[in-house]
Amino acid sequence: MRLHGYFRSGAAYRVRVALNLKGLVVDHVSHHLRRGEQRASSYLALNPQGLVPALELDNGTVLTQSLAIIEWLDETWPQPALLPADPIQRARVRAFALAIAADTHPVQNLRILRRIEEVAASDTAGQAWAMEVNQAGLAACERLIAAEPGPFCFGDAPTLADVCLVPQLGNARRFGADVRAFPRLLQAEAAALALAAFAAAAPERQPDSE
Amino acid sequence: MRLHGYFRSGAAYRVRVALNLKGLVVDHVSHHLRRGEQRASSYLALNPQGLVPALELDNGTVLTQSLAIIEWLDETWPQPALLPADPIQRARVRAFALAIAADTHPVQNLRILRRIEEVAASDTAGQAWAMEVNQAGLAACERLIAAEPGPFCFGDAPTLADVCLVPQLGNARRFGADVRAFPRLLQAEAAALALAAFAAAAPERQPDSE
Repeated sequence: MRLHGYFRSGAAYRVRVALNLKGLVVDHVSHHLRRGEQRASSYLALNPQGLVPALELDNGTVLTQSLAIIEWLDETWPQPALLPADPIQRARVRAFALAIAADTHPVQNLRILRRIEEVAASDTAGQAWAMEVNQAGLAACERLIAAEPGPFCFGDAPTLADVCLVPQLGNARRFGADVRAFPRLLQAEAAALALAAFAAAAPERQPDSE
Repeated sequence: MRLHGYFRSGAAYRVRVALNLKGLVVDHVSHHLRRGEQRASSYLALNPQGLVPALELDNGTVLTQSLAIIEWLDETWPQPALLPADPIQRARVRAFALAIAADTHPVQNLRILRRIEEVAASDTAGQAWAMEVNQAGLAACERLIAAEPGPFCFGDAPTLADVCLVPQLGNARRFGADVRAFPRLLQAEAAALALAAFAAAAPERQPDSE
């Protein structure tokens, strides 16, 4: 399999972690997002959305959208499970993941920041917006797991929630958000980063990191 | 069960459709989004994200995030299935749903439009942005199912993809996007709206519609 990604893409980072947790080794193809390589016609033929990640299977099938890819990985290689067995807990893990993957991450991506900077005629308006979006999104996440025992987001093993949380905390810091207000999230992050599957997927450990 | 929603919320509309497809009747509680009722402390106690929808179960458990709620409904009431049985097709349906639910809908919500209007000092900058986001998101969706036979997004029965598509087409029109360029999406929408489950969930059919 080949993972089309970019070291700094939070969505690609999620898939790198999930692959590592499943013990799957894949080839990596980097598409430089700031240079717009994800909009090259050769890449659009693979993924018409022009976004990373995309997972190209050995038979040529291309899967897109990080959460859909991760659900497929979890259905195809069930161990270790990235979702709990109990339906209500599955719903809570998915809701946490979507609070990041739908309501936080896409709202602070490059396309939005550029538009905000353009209409504001300000080079810093985008960063201020991204910081605010991350702060609000993570504050909601902190409350969603406040009563969970930990150390991971949901219990004593990593789930899809942790897979989404760790990259987003990285983004939040990069945009200057103050994450110290989120002790429960930081506890989950520390537990995750103690695992090689998470540590090896970090942006700065990727060959395309600048 | 009680569904906390708002007639015009695309995410609540998805859950209304899914409940109807499953034949489940629930109570509806409306929270007026433009008046900010979703940020009332009583509602934040239910859903710390301050977003609709939230599904309150009879035992007090609250589920949030439309896609997580719909996956839970599908796991708990498996018929009719909202995801195909084949793992690759499941991944493709989920990717289509996320192209809308993560990459299109949250990027054109009220919070973003208000910020863009504020930094642009223009009452119309938000609408222009929302139109552009809808046009791009739906163009990608059109390509994602171009080779699918239809009439629904994926085959001859509605899936999570149609559940996400129909509300988003409504949003796109409301923001002035030209949807005539998406014949495959319009075919799926027509098939869906011929079903009572979709038609009865439409915003204008809700008691809180203005």
